Amino acid sequence: MSPEELGIPGPVAVIGSGLIGTSVALSLRRVGVDVLLSDTDPQSLDVAVAAGAGRAIGPDDQPSVVVVAVPPRHTGQVLAEASSRWPAATLTDVTSVKQTVLDEAVALGADPHRLVGGHPMAGREVSGAAAALANLMDDRLWVITPLPESGVEHVRRVHRVASACGAVPVEMGMAEHDAAVALVSHTPQVLASALAGQLRESSPDSVGIAGQGLRDMTRIAASNVDLWTDILAANSAPVAEILDRLAASLGRAADSLRAVAAGSTESVAGIESLLSAGVEGQRLIPGKHGAAPSAYREILVQVADRPGELGRLFTAAAEADVNLEDVRIEHVLGRPSGLVGLFVRPDAGERLIGALQERSFDVRG
Amino acid sequence: MSPEELGIPGPVAVIGSGLIGTSVALSLRRVGVDVLLSDTDPQSLDVAVAAGAGRAIGPDDQPSVVVVAVPPRHTGQVLAEASSRWPAATLTDVTSVKQTVLDEAVALGADPHRLVGGHPMAGREVSGAAAALANLMDDRLWVITPLPESGVEHVRRVHRVASACGAVPVEMGMAEHDAAVALVSHTPQVLASALAGQLRESSPDSVGIAGQGLRDMTRIAASNVDLWTDILAANSAPVAEILDRLAASLGRAADSLRAVAAGSTESVAGIESLLSAGVEGQRLIPGKHGAAPSAYREILVQVADRPGELGRLFTAAAEADVNLEDVRIEHVLGRPSGLVGLFVRPDAGERLIGALQERSFDVRG
Repeated sequence: MSPEELGIPGPVAVIGSGLIGTSVALSLRRVGVDVLLSDTDPQSLDVAVAAGAGRAIGPDDQPSVVVVAVPPRHTGQVLAEASSRWPAATLTDVTSVKQTVLDEAVALGADPHRLVGGHPMAGREVSGAAAALANLMDDRLWVITPLPESGVEHVRRVHRVASACGAVPVEMGMAEHDAAVALVSHTPQVLASALAGQLRESSPDSVGIAGQGLRDMTRIAASNVDLWTDILAANSAPVAEILDRLAASLGRAADSLRAVAAGSTESVAGIESLLSAGVEGQRLIPGKHGAAPSAYREILVQVADRPGELGRLFTAAAEADVNLEDVRIEHVLGRPSGLVGLFVRPDAGERLIGALQERSFDVRG
Repeated sequence: MSPEELGIPGPVAVIGSGLIGTSVALSLRRVGVDVLLSDTDPQSLDVAVAAGAGRAIGPDDQPSVVVVAVPPRHTGQVLAEASSRWPAATLTDVTSVKQTVLDEAVALGADPHRLVGGHPMAGREVSGAAAALANLMDDRLWVITPLPESGVEHVRRVHRVASACGAVPVEMGMAEHDAAVALVSHTPQVLASALAGQLRESSPDSVGIAGQGLRDMTRIAASNVDLWTDILAANSAPVAEILDRLAASLGRAADSLRAVAAGSTESVAGIESLLSAGVEGQRLIPGKHGAAPSAYREILVQVADRPGELGRLFTAAAEADVNLEDVRIEHVLGRPSGLVGLFVRPDAGERLIGALQERSFDVRG
C-alpha cells in the first residue's frame, strides 16, 4: 500500500528514538511512509537511522503527523514545541497516561485542535532503539484519546498511523483510558512489586518451594524502575484510588483471618466473600481473541526435558488436526521433565488425547 | 521395586478419596504397594477403587502407614482417630498448613511419636477422585514436617512414602513451612482474588485492554473457594501478618502517589523504592531446576494461529539441537496470530535464531 492509499498526506516525524518510537518508525517504513527522526541523544538517533527507521529530520522538513515518543515527563513539553514548530501538523504521542500529559501539553501551548492522544499497547522487557522491532505493534490495540477540541481530520490521521503500524485502533476518552490502565496495568505493577519486595526478607528455603502462582504474580516486578516510576507518577491519582481500595480489602482480609485465628468461626465469611469476588472478577478478563478463558480444555502431558520432545508433541497435535489455543509449561525443581498444558477447544480434547496416547505420550488428563 | 525394597513394611492406608488422596494411592499402587482406602462418601470410595487406587479398608487391616487426605478442618480429628484405631501405624497428612492442624491432632489424642506432617506440593484446578492421576506427585516437592516428638523411624517412613509416590521429599520445621506457604502461596492467592475482585466494578472496555500482566496476576483467582477458605483459615495468623505488611506497603504507595499528584516531586522516591525492592525480590525466585530466571534468553517469534505452526517451530528448535527451557505464548485480541517466547540457554540463542530464520520464521528478536 502506498502512503497515499494509507491516507497519510506527507512525512511522519517520530520524536524520540527509544524502543517505541523506533518500532513505530520501522513499522511505518515497512509500508513505505517517509519517516523523519529526531532524538536529543545523537547516538540513539544514529542507531535508529542505521536500523532503517527513517532519516534525521532537517530544518525544512514539514511532517503531516508528529508522533512524540519520549518519556512521559517530557511529552507535554515536546508536544508544545512540535505544535509551534510545525503549525499544520497533526500531533500525537504514545505515553501510557493521557489526561495529565495532554493537559500539560495544552498548558504549554500545544494547539488542542491538532492534538490527539495515543497509546499503543505494546512493549518489551528491554528498551532502546536497538531493541526496536518493525512488527512490535502488529495486532496490538492502539488506544486513541481525542481531546474535546481535536479536529475530526486529525483524529482520523492518528487512526491511520496506528493502522499503518499494524495495530488495531480503539477510541476512548482520556479519563476512561487512564482509569482503565490504572486498573489493568499500573495497579498490577505496584502489586507485583510489593509482593516481590516481601520475598527479600524470607529464607531461600521458603522461596524455594514457590510454585507457578508466585512466579506468575511477580513476573512484571522485574520491569524497568525508571520508566514505571514515570508512568505511575503521571497517572498518580487514579492509581492511588485503586491502591487504597486494595489496601482496605487486604486489611479487611487480615482482620477476618486474625478473628478466625482467635476462634471466630463467622469471620470465615469475610474470606469466602473475598475469594468469591475474585472468581467473578477473573471471569471478566477476555481470553484469546476475546473468548472466555473457560472456553478451552486443558490437556496435561508430562514431557521429557530434551531436544525434540516438544516438537514431537506439537507435531502430533498438528497431525491430529488440532489447533492449540494456548500452551503453558510448568517446571519442577531438580528433575528433568516438565508438565505441558495444551489448551484446545473442548470438541478437540478427546481427539488430541487419542493422538497423543497413540504416540506414547504420558497424558495426565 | 517391591514394597519391601521401598522400605514400607506393610499396607498403606489412605483416608480420604479426593484428588490428592486418590492420586497418592494410585502412585503407590504403581510401585506395588498394598493400598487400603476409606472415605465417608461411599461414592468417592467406589470411584477410587474402580480407578485401581486400592481396596476398601476392612476392620482387620493393619496399615503400617496412614496417610490422611481429608479437608484441613477435619484432618486433626481423623489423625487422632487413626492413632487410636491403629496403635502401631505411622501417621501423616497432606494438608497445606501444618502447625494448627498437627497441634489439633495431638490435642485430640494423636500419638506425637508416630505423627509426622506432610505436604506434597501438587494439585490441579479440578478436584475429586475422578480427577486423580497416578503421576500427579512425580517430581514434585513433598515437604515433611516432623514434630519435636516424632520418632526417627516414623519420619523415615514418611520420606519413603513420598519417594514411592515419585515426589522429592524435603524436611522443614512446621512454623517454617507455614510461614513459607503463607508467603509464596496463601498471600498471593488473597492478592490475586482482591485484584480480580476490583474488575467487577469496571467497564468491559477497561477490562478489554488488559494485557498479559493482568492475566498472569489474576489466574489463580479462579481457584476453588471452599478449599481456599479452609486453607487460609488454617494458616490465618501467618497470612494475616503478611497481608498487613502488604496493605501498609500499598497504603504508603497510594500516599506517595497522592503527594505526587499534588505536586510533590520528592514523593516520587517512595514509588521508586517500592519498584526497586520488587526487582530485587523477584530475582530471588528460583527458575527451572533452581537456576536463576535470568539465566535464559528469550527469543520471540510471531506464529500464525493454525494447526502445525507450533509443531514446525519446535521441530526447528530440535533440529538445531537447541533445548527449550521454557515457552510462553501471548495472544492478542482479534487477530489470528500469537507471539511465542522461547527460553533457551544464552549460548544457544544465536543458533536458534539462525535456524528459525532459515525456515522463514518471523523472529522478533
